Amino acid sequence: MGRWVIVQTERVRRPADLHGPAAAASAGPCAFCAGEEHQTPPELFAFRSGPEPEPNGPGWRVRVVPSRFPALRVEGELGRRGHGLYDVTNGIGAHEVVVESPEHDGTLASLPVSALEDVIAAWRERIVDLRRDARFRSILMVRSYRTAAGGVRAHPHSVLLATPMLPPAVGEELTQARAYYDYRERCPFCDVLYQELADGTRIVAASDHVVAFAPFAGRLPFEVWLLPRRHAATFERSTDAVVRDVARVLRIVVRKLERVLADPPFTLVLHTAPAGETDSPYYHWHLELQPAVGPAAGSVDEAGFHVNVMPPEDAARYLRDVPD
Amino acid sequence: MGRWVIVQTERVRRPADLHGPAAAASAGPCAFCAGEEHQTPPELFAFRSGPEPEPNGPGWRVRVVPSRFPALRVEGELGRRGHGLYDVTNGIGAHEVVVESPEHDGTLASLPVSALEDVIAAWRERIVDLRRDARFRSILMVRSYRTAAGGVRAHPHSVLLATPMLPPAVGEELTQARAYYDYRERCPFCDVLYQELADGTRIVAASDHVVAFAPFAGRLPFEVWLLPRRHAATFERSTDAVVRDVARVLRIVVRKLERVLADPPFTLVLHTAPAGETDSPYYHWHLELQPAVGPAAGSVDEAGFHVNVMPPEDAARYLRDVPD
Repeated sequence: MGRWVIVQTERVRRPADLHGPAAAASAGPCAFCAGEEHQTPPELFAFRSGPEPEPNGPGWRVRVVPSRFPALRVEGELGRRGHGLYDVTNGIGAHEVVVESPEHDGTLASLPVSALEDVIAAWRERIVDLRRDARFRSILMVRSYRTAAGGVRAHPHSVLLATPMLPPAVGEELTQARAYYDYRERCPFCDVLYQELADGTRIVAASDHVVAFAPFAGRLPFEVWLLPRRHAATFERSTDAVVRDVARVLRIVVRKLERVLADPPFTLVLHTAPAGETDSPYYHWHLELQPAVGPAAGSVDEAGFHVNVMPPEDAARYLRDVPD
Repeated sequence: MGRWVIVQTERVRRPADLHGPAAAASAGPCAFCAGEEHQTPPELFAFRSGPEPEPNGPGWRVRVVPSRFPALRVEGELGRRGHGLYDVTNGIGAHEVVVESPEHDGTLASLPVSALEDVIAAWRERIVDLRRDARFRSILMVRSYRTAAGGVRAHPHSVLLATPMLPPAVGEELTQARAYYDYRERCPFCDVLYQELADGTRIVAASDHVVAFAPFAGRLPFEVWLLPRRHAATFERSTDAVVRDVARVLRIVVRKLERVLADPPFTLVLHTAPAGETDSPYYHWHLELQPAVGPAAGSVDEAGFHVNVMPPEDAARYLRDVPD
């Protein structure tokens, strides 16, 4: 009930296929490397240097291509329909890969700040374009680094997912934000930001336009959120100045995490308001960075409770105390 | 917003502690083995055979003890209070271990059906008792088998968690069930059961009192739910006949899964109505069994979408096709 599940049958034919061992991280060069552009589907977008080189050749700084193994496909109609009690819909969606660098080896922390600016500007460009497709309700950016679900590709990349239904996490967040707004007539994220800045103990880094802090009820040790100081429901309307600040502060945060936690696996997710809420007075775009570290708390985790073994004030202090 | 997080600071002092390697599964004998009763806190409940032997000695078939490493503690007041925008409460709750057998080696699939009946009857006894504590809103049983979060203890055991707040999964389920009931005036679980029995393609096993099926929108390959045929909000009011049937059908399901998936890790969670809803016309207690198999779908998973690579009809057919 109230749950959408993507049934993807192309990768598994028999129960035994479920046991395939995870492949090891690949060495370069790979399909995302400069010079290997022919191995990907034609590019959707790129930032290129110099006198307008050809698409799908080298010379790019950031390159966006469709996923070769999409969980969802752009083609076709939604065809939402009933199946007895259940609802069924075609697996429509966009699944794009943002290749963050022509170099195979590199991380968010090792990219120069100008390269990170390009990456964040590429997210913005692609989200603006994906918004034009009225079938898509929600657009997320997910940046996995060395996580189990992140897959085997080492070449630095992030993923854009546009879907006709709300991801559960965003749906929940919207419901809660709306309830808060109905009661107080204020954006809950703006209120949190105000309180965090006044308190200061959970702040990790801040600049003119954005603030990074360890959220009060962080689910995982060293979870960090990054929010724009000024209320804005959608990320993709950010000015260049905000994009620059996001790059600067995000780089500071990932470099601090790399030092304090010895290069941890992490997932970075960009939440921007879904279609129909892009002018919302209660939704406030943000980045959620979750390192995958720390002991599992057994059955308590499996019951669906979040157990955090590191208070956010301590995490923020450890992060503030290392150099940027 | 709308999220409770348990902050447990006893196990981690510094960031480096987050990297402790997972210990390997322990060989017996352990604190849960017969003859080692002095290694656990005093027992809360046991089924014993023969002429009333002493508590905390051998002679038991199933034994329930408090957890030695509780994420939540029974002692104290809730003390729910504000902290600026946030709510804070003391970590009150019960965290009990149901030792399912005096033998170190054994699994849900290998226990005789009478032993499994004892286990399920012990869940019932303890939940009835925990209901008497008005501080507890929700009670869950979680049975982990060889999962990462399940911890290192191999001795067969399940866990009872009583908490003052609803686990997110149960809260979501209640909201959806209530919305369905408000609209149709019927229990959504009863309707699902009716449709599944009429359709038949997703049924795995059934008996007089309970039905096991692969849910239409299962989140994971070979997810199986077990529901009582007759509407009942709470498990703990089940008759002996229902307990016997749960044991029989659950044993069939785990033995089938063991054959089809080669002894998969799994998590089994019992959902029973929370306090205040124990006579609910829309909540229907059930067991959710989720094997931990199958490839992760990368960023799509990390965005919070469930991706299932095995349609439930195929899973149910594979399970039906092996002998019980």
